[in-house]
Amino acid sequence: MNLRFTKMHGLGNDFVVIDAVNQSVALSPDQVRWLADRHRGIGCDQLLLVEPASDSAADFRYRIYNADGGEVEQCGNGARCFMRFVHDQGLTDRRALTVQTLGGPIELQLEDDGQVTVDMGPPRLEPAAIPFQAPARASVYPIEVDGQEYRIGALSMGNPHAVLTVEDIERTPVAELGPRIEHHPRFPNRVNVGFMQILASNHIRLRVHERGAGETCACGTGACAAVVAGRLQGRLDERVRVSLPGGDLVISWPGENASVFMTGPAVSVFEGTIPL
Amino acid sequence: MNLRFTKMHGLGNDFVVIDAVNQSVALSPDQVRWLADRHRGIGCDQLLLVEPASDSAADFRYRIYNADGGEVEQCGNGARCFMRFVHDQGLTDRRALTVQTLGGPIELQLEDDGQVTVDMGPPRLEPAAIPFQAPARASVYPIEVDGQEYRIGALSMGNPHAVLTVEDIERTPVAELGPRIEHHPRFPNRVNVGFMQILASNHIRLRVHERGAGETCACGTGACAAVVAGRLQGRLDERVRVSLPGGDLVISWPGENASVFMTGPAVSVFEGTIPL
Repeated sequence: MNLRFTKMHGLGNDFVVIDAVNQSVALSPDQVRWLADRHRGIGCDQLLLVEPASDSAADFRYRIYNADGGEVEQCGNGARCFMRFVHDQGLTDRRALTVQTLGGPIELQLEDDGQVTVDMGPPRLEPAAIPFQAPARASVYPIEVDGQEYRIGALSMGNPHAVLTVEDIERTPVAELGPRIEHHPRFPNRVNVGFMQILASNHIRLRVHERGAGETCACGTGACAAVVAGRLQGRLDERVRVSLPGGDLVISWPGENASVFMTGPAVSVFEGTIPL
Repeated sequence: MNLRFTKMHGLGNDFVVIDAVNQSVALSPDQVRWLADRHRGIGCDQLLLVEPASDSAADFRYRIYNADGGEVEQCGNGARCFMRFVHDQGLTDRRALTVQTLGGPIELQLEDDGQVTVDMGPPRLEPAAIPFQAPARASVYPIEVDGQEYRIGALSMGNPHAVLTVEDIERTPVAELGPRIEHHPRFPNRVNVGFMQILASNHIRLRVHERGAGETCACGTGACAAVVAGRLQGRLDERVRVSLPGGDLVISWPGENASVFMTGPAVSVFEGTIPL
């Protein structure tokens, strides 16, 4: 068969998106690895399969596969691409959607300017839920790395995050300090590490060392974690522009127990067909 | 406009190929860089533009652009993809073509099995033409690297090559030894370095350290150089299978003053359209 697909990206995090509503698609892990291969296939960070909902409370279902062929739970950049895709392809005209994912249902909103808002769920702040070894919940935790003390925020957005505030993001040694905090014994499942420079109470710059991956250009959960940490420390507004190396996101968090909302762009790059 | 393109590869060296015979295409260096971007564009090592010939002695002209936007002279993997493209798209039914390139005219042949043979021109064997500092032309030159003597073949296929014969290609320290020979003072323009294991007089394995690029998976001129060097040393037949990390090429060289012929595969991966 000839498989139709759309190549998309959100802040440079790129996806092959496939309409499995109007096409019958079943991909083996080998086929996913081939489609994701940047030299011999189409090439992408992740492959996104858009399917009909199996639950009447949802509008669609989607599955996300990593380039290694494995299915993964969630991806904020992928969720934004999904929303643009179903509108661009005429699969729906509803601007608010509930979507089934492997990580549970998510709520998406298509904004008037074409950006997409994703309900990222509430942060988890209790140390045991992160998991992080600390005697009690706090907005700032001292932590010792190679004999030097750093002050971090720590929380979970479904995955664990540590957030450091820095004076100059350009000069921050992310590649050196990131892995040392990632592997700190107080984070038993390791941790993603965000380095945040506060430009104003409504605008930060952020670089993120991702667990097991190194510095990335567009970590959505990292942006959420930084704004939550900064708000708990009384330094940020409810709505904050986050400038990442890959581009800008806007993060909103009303506060305790509320969901974090992430708004950002999704771009269709090209349409293609590939024989399977 | 919506630009139609085909994504192709030759042994993993990948190309965006554009029909500029039936489409009016003028690309700026910025557009080439964007199209070659693997996250925000289509993604490729090189972009190949197929144009009508401007000279009545040629069938077509093509231009090759690197991912940095600059135009380059020659590429054996690209020449094979060009031939498959003009046949797959129905632009010609002639199986032998003369094609204008920035590096001069080249001769191509579509084989019955779909592989493509490229006339790579004759090797240049005089040391001054390589360039390589040696008192006289020889089939083997001793060369000292860090106090140890190696025996190399040296020749030019339009670009300079040194070729070492090794016992076990898997255990050869290409990443260490390659750059040391590349920057040896006897090669004033630096040199590509091939490491060849002779399996039989008609079959070699080859790994190539490319000048300024490190080890690559499918260096066509490196495969030609290895077979020429091996033949000059009396160790290889006229027709030799060369197993590179990216796949196999067949190299033929009748001998002194004759052209080297390279035969190998070219694969169409997918068709696409992208708004310019």
